[in-house]
Amino acid sequence: MRKVKLVVQYDGTDYAGFQIQPNVPTVQEELERALAKVLQHPVHVVAAGRTDAGVHAIGQVVAIETDNPIPASQLVKATNEVLPTAIGVVEAQDVSPGFHPRYDAVAKLYLYRILNRPIGSPFLCRYAWHVPGKLDEEAMNAGAACLLGTHDFSAFEAAGSSTRNKVRCLQRLDCDRVGDIVEIRALADGFLYMMVRNIVGTLVEVGQGRLPPAAMERILQSRDRSQAGPTAPPHGLCLVRVDY
Amino acid sequence: MRKVKLVVQYDGTDYAGFQIQPNVPTVQEELERALAKVLQHPVHVVAAGRTDAGVHAIGQVVAIETDNPIPASQLVKATNEVLPTAIGVVEAQDVSPGFHPRYDAVAKLYLYRILNRPIGSPFLCRYAWHVPGKLDEEAMNAGAACLLGTHDFSAFEAAGSSTRNKVRCLQRLDCDRVGDIVEIRALADGFLYMMVRNIVGTLVEVGQGRLPPAAMERILQSRDRSQAGPTAPPHGLCLVRVDY
Repeated sequence: MRKVKLVVQYDGTDYAGFQIQPNVPTVQEELERALAKVLQHPVHVVAAGRTDAGVHAIGQVVAIETDNPIPASQLVKATNEVLPTAIGVVEAQDVSPGFHPRYDAVAKLYLYRILNRPIGSPFLCRYAWHVPGKLDEEAMNAGAACLLGTHDFSAFEAAGSSTRNKVRCLQRLDCDRVGDIVEIRALADGFLYMMVRNIVGTLVEVGQGRLPPAAMERILQSRDRSQAGPTAPPHGLCLVRVDY
Repeated sequence: MRKVKLVVQYDGTDYAGFQIQPNVPTVQEELERALAKVLQHPVHVVAAGRTDAGVHAIGQVVAIETDNPIPASQLVKATNEVLPTAIGVVEAQDVSPGFHPRYDAVAKLYLYRILNRPIGSPFLCRYAWHVPGKLDEEAMNAGAACLLGTHDFSAFEAAGSSTRNKVRCLQRLDCDRVGDIVEIRALADGFLYMMVRNIVGTLVEVGQGRLPPAAMERILQSRDRSQAGPTAPPHGLCLVRVDY
């Protein structure tokens, strides 16, 4: 049995998230349908992580099993021909049968984009959170630095998660202004449920001057979700890369 | 009676073009509906140019007449609150009653974007034409240079236009590669019907090596539409700016 690793990109706007659920469109369902058509057998897709409704990806990683001998490069081409335009396979490669996209991942990189100007943009309204008032990205960077390293991130985890280990190592969290867009990149060995969006929502409070940068440290140490800011909306978030 | 000039941006994907038509969604209709709500009277919108179905704008210019004393900056804000997210007003200013967005325009700048790599993008599929095979942008630039200046552009005009004067002055036509994207910018005192898209479709033939750059000059001089290449699709095109 071959195991094939696929790098996948998608516009999450019109999907109820990655994971299959009944009666709603999901990325997993579209991928499984397209791959089954190409490979001529039912396909189960295992992903590095479930992205939520409205969240995008340019580097989601999934694995499938098949006995079909189709070359990886042809698999990419053929699958893209049957996928909807909102989803695409970027690359495919044969991997060892033991490869697991979730358990073998050593780090994930997320990008969160904020359109920070008074007027919104019809072209970015699906891909960036529109925050009209000027954000102080230097204050946001100072606040972000408080979170770097290995910590219990409970304060930034949404309710309803069953994960027991709340400790993650945040290797990178930086805010860059590129014209009217503030880009926040977060790299960690893993993320708790809605952790990036809860961190971004809190950093925006810092950028608006409603919280001092040092509040990030106090919130982190509280391990109390109610201390952190609101959850940033999903459409600004994109899974950029999964490292193995 | 006040005359107000508005700069308007829109994602043309879901509209049957700028101009009002029965039974289909148009940008003009949405603008007139939103402005009527804000100004509390029926509004007629006059635009610098009609963009076709699927074509975008970041700098379309329109004018309206009103007796409502609302300040221009407030008009922007209030109108954006009632417009769909695909359409936005960027700025508004009072102008002299004689101002006409179409007749007073001295130049228009269009941008055409081509995603030039084997794999498409879910994020650009609404905003760029996907041409998988490598384009030679230097050959395209050499071909583009043949069209600069004042000429009869009949060869690049779509059938069905009633414009009698086919002479336009093309001041700028250049192709820049920005990573995987080839950006073509065209600046002229005016454009014939589908002229930009017909020029782009022909330049792509040059970029693919199917036509030599010098063929652009021969095609221009033929004044014969059947000599030029195919029409590039609308979704790569964006009206960037109208100069007065």
